[in-house]
Amino acid sequence: MNFVDIIRKKRDGFELSKEEIEYFAFSAADGSVPDYQLSALLMAICFNGLTERETLDLTNAMARSGDMADLSAINGITGDKHSTGGVGDKTTLIVAPVVASCGIKIAKMSGRGLGHTGGTVDKLESIPGFGTFLDSDEFISIVNECGICVTGQSGKLCPADKKLYALRDVTATVDNVSLIASSIMSKKLAGGAECIVLDVKCGSGAFMKDEKSATVLAEKMVEIGKGAGRKIAALITDMDVPLGHNIGNSLEIIEAVETLKGNGPHDLTEISVSLSAKLLELAGKGTFEECKGIAMTKINDGSAFEKLCEMVSLQGGNEEYIRNTDLFPSAKFIYNVIMPENGYIVHMDTAGIGSVCASLGAGRMKKEDVIDSSAGIVLRKKTGDHAEKGDVIAVLYANNDSLFESAGQRFLSSLKFGNEKTEFKPLVLNTVE
Amino acid sequence: MNFVDIIRKKRDGFELSKEEIEYFAFSAADGSVPDYQLSALLMAICFNGLTERETLDLTNAMARSGDMADLSAINGITGDKHSTGGVGDKTTLIVAPVVASCGIKIAKMSGRGLGHTGGTVDKLESIPGFGTFLDSDEFISIVNECGICVTGQSGKLCPADKKLYALRDVTATVDNVSLIASSIMSKKLAGGAECIVLDVKCGSGAFMKDEKSATVLAEKMVEIGKGAGRKIAALITDMDVPLGHNIGNSLEIIEAVETLKGNGPHDLTEISVSLSAKLLELAGKGTFEECKGIAMTKINDGSAFEKLCEMVSLQGGNEEYIRNTDLFPSAKFIYNVIMPENGYIVHMDTAGIGSVCASLGAGRMKKEDVIDSSAGIVLRKKTGDHAEKGDVIAVLYANNDSLFESAGQRFLSSLKFGNEKTEFKPLVLNTVE
Repeated sequence: MNFVDIIRKKRDGFELSKEEIEYFAFSAADGSVPDYQLSALLMAICFNGLTERETLDLTNAMARSGDMADLSAINGITGDKHSTGGVGDKTTLIVAPVVASCGIKIAKMSGRGLGHTGGTVDKLESIPGFGTFLDSDEFISIVNECGICVTGQSGKLCPADKKLYALRDVTATVDNVSLIASSIMSKKLAGGAECIVLDVKCGSGAFMKDEKSATVLAEKMVEIGKGAGRKIAALITDMDVPLGHNIGNSLEIIEAVETLKGNGPHDLTEISVSLSAKLLELAGKGTFEECKGIAMTKINDGSAFEKLCEMVSLQGGNEEYIRNTDLFPSAKFIYNVIMPENGYIVHMDTAGIGSVCASLGAGRMKKEDVIDSSAGIVLRKKTGDHAEKGDVIAVLYANNDSLFESAGQRFLSSLKFGNEKTEFKPLVLNTVE
Repeated sequence: MNFVDIIRKKRDGFELSKEEIEYFAFSAADGSVPDYQLSALLMAICFNGLTERETLDLTNAMARSGDMADLSAINGITGDKHSTGGVGDKTTLIVAPVVASCGIKIAKMSGRGLGHTGGTVDKLESIPGFGTFLDSDEFISIVNECGICVTGQSGKLCPADKKLYALRDVTATVDNVSLIASSIMSKKLAGGAECIVLDVKCGSGAFMKDEKSATVLAEKMVEIGKGAGRKIAALITDMDVPLGHNIGNSLEIIEAVETLKGNGPHDLTEISVSLSAKLLELAGKGTFEECKGIAMTKINDGSAFEKLCEMVSLQGGNEEYIRNTDLFPSAKFIYNVIMPENGYIVHMDTAGIGSVCASLGAGRMKKEDVIDSSAGIVLRKKTGDHAEKGDVIAVLYANNDSLFESAGQRFLSSLKFGNEKTEFKPLVLNTVE
C-alpha cells in the first residue's frame, strides 16, 4: 500500500477502505510512515471529513495499536466514565464510588495531561501513599475486591492516538470532530468497559463552546461506541461556569468528599448524580429517574463515601485524609479576590479562570512540570451571585506569594459584572443515546 | 511568528500576509520549520488555494531563498525560455540559437531532473567535451562573447522550491496550479532574464492533459512574471503527439541540428519558430508575424546554426559533432517496431512512449541514474499517418538488447489504430500574454 495514494484519495473526497485506515493508524503507531505524510492526511481529513465507517475503523485501529485492557477476570458488569474536560470537574471522584457502591465494576484508567489542574490520578495522588502505578493483576484484584480502582494510563495505551494527537496539536488539525471523537473513544475502547457514560461539556470553560457542537461530538462518540458493541450514552453538561467551588488538586478531593457525604454544592451534586444514574441505567439498574434515586440513596446512606475510603485504602492511600479532610496541608499563602463594585457576576470566562489556577501551580504547562497539590482557587461567588463592593469573591491558594499579583488581576478580568441577575440555565442540557 | 497559526489561517480560508508567506518559504529553505508543518500547510493550500498576491509573494520569496543570477554584466536584452515538458521536446536547442543570432542574450540555466530523457544540459553533454558546470564569470563571459550559454542549475538555486517540491511529491500536494506556477516561476525569476517565453504543453504527453488547465497554468505564470516586472508570454502548444521524430539525448541533438539547418520536421520547426518569434517580440524586435519572418531567415541563412556551433565550441564541446552529426555514436542495438495491421495511427499515449524511452536508458528513474546518451526512439509514423501491415513504424535504440521485448510491446500498446485519419489540430493552441 502506498501512503501517497491514501493521502490523494482522501484529498479527492473518497472514502478510505478499512485496510487503508488501519495502515494509517498502525504506521502512526510504529513510526513507519513519516510525520509529513501523516500530517498531510490529517489536513485532508480536516477538509473532507471521515465517514461513520471510517471513523469507527480508525477508532478500532487506534485502540488495537497498543495494549488493550483485559477485564475478563472481573466479575460483573464493567462501567467507565469520560469527561471532555472542564474547570472544577471532579465528577469522576464522585460518580465512580456511587456507581461502584451499586455493584457496577469501575476499572478506570485515567490520564494526567496538561491543563488548569492535574487529571484524576494527579488529584488522587494528593492523598499520601495513594498509588496509581498498578500492574494489571493488582488493578483487577482491587476491582474484584471493592468494585473500583483508578490507575494511571499505561504508556502503551493507544500509541497511534498518542502520535496523531501530538501531531494534530502542532499542525492545526485538532478541530475535526471525527478525529476528536476517535481520539477519545479509542482510549475508552482500549479501556475495555461494557458500559460507558460520556460527559460532554460546553461553554466558556470547555473545548466545545456551544451546545450544538458539543452535541455533534457526543453523537459521533456514541455512534462509535455502539458500533464497537458498547452500551453508551452522553450527557451534554454546562461548563460556562466552573463546576462546584473548588479548583485544584487536594481542593477538589475535599469537595468531592463533601459531595459524597451529601454536603456538596448543588451543581456538582446534580451533574454527578445524573452521570451516575445514566451509567446505572446503561448497566440495567432501572430507568434514568429510578437510577437517580438509587444514586442519591447511596450518597445519603454513606455507602458511596465508604466505597471511596475502601478504594483509597486498597490503593495504599491514607484513608484518614478522606475521613478528615482537614489533614490535607493548606497552601502556605492565600489571597483574597475582592468584589470591585456592588452588583452581580454576570459572566465568568471559565477557561480564563482555569488558566489562573494553572499559573498558581495546580496544573502543568508542559509535560515535565510538577503539580502543586495544595494550590488552587476556592470560589465564593459564581455567575448569578450578588456581592457588595469589598466582599471576598474568591480565595487563591499558592506556595509562592509572588504569583498572586498577576493571578488576582487576571482572575478579576475573567469576570463581568452587572446589575441584572443572569438567567438560569439547566446543568444537563441534553442527552445523546 | 507561530507556524501553527499560519497553517490555521490558511486552513480557515484567510489570505496570508507577505511576512507569513516569506516565513513559510525561508523556513522551508533553512529547515527551521519541521516537514510535518510544511506539508500540513501545503495540503491546506491545495484546498483553499493562494490568491494572486500570495502566489507572487511566494514566488518572489522562493526565488530569493537562494542564489539569484546577476545578469547585470551582460550587454543587451536578456531572454529565457521554459517548457513545462513533453516527449521529444528539444525546442530550447533551437530557440536559444535562433534568438541569440538576433542579438538577444540567452544566459540559460537548465535542469536535469527525472523523465523520459535527460534535461537540456544532459542532451548537450552527449557532445564530447561540452561543459555545463560553469562558474558565474565564465557563464557571463561566454554570453557576452557569443550571446548564448546553457549551464546546469546552481545547487543553491531556489532551495525553498527544492524543499517544497520534494515534499509535495510525497504528500499528494502537487496538483495545485498556484504551487506549480510559483515553483516554475521562482526559478525563472532567480534566473534573472528580462524577457521570458513559456511553452505550456498540453495533451497525453504533458503534465496538463487539456487546453483549459494548461491555459489556467499559463495565466498564473504570466501573472507572476508581470507582477515581478518581467516581459513574459506563454504559448499553449500541443503535446498529444511526440514533438518531431527523435526522442533521446544525442538523437534529439541530431534532430535539433537538422531543424536549425532548415531540414527539421514540420511540427518541431513551427513550434520552435513560434516560441522564438514570441521571445523576439517581447524583446521589441517587431510584431509576432515580423519576428516569425526574422526567425525563419536566421534558420535559412545558417546564422542560427552557426550560433549553436559557436556556443558548443566556447563551452568546450567538439563542434565537429554538430557540423557532422554522423559522428555521434549509435546505440549498439536497434529494434524495429512493426505495424500490426493496415491503417492509420489514430492516437498515441505520448506519456507511455516517453516511459518506453526512459526504460531504454535515455532517462533517469531516480536521481542517481546515469543517462545513456545514445538510447532512444526514432518515430517513423505518428498520429494521423497511414502504414501497411509489416511497415517499420518506429526504431528503438539501446545498449542492452534484453530491454527490447518489453519495450517493443509497451510501445505498441501505447498506440491506437483505425481506418480514419484523425483530424488536424493546430500546434500552437493559444497565446497568453
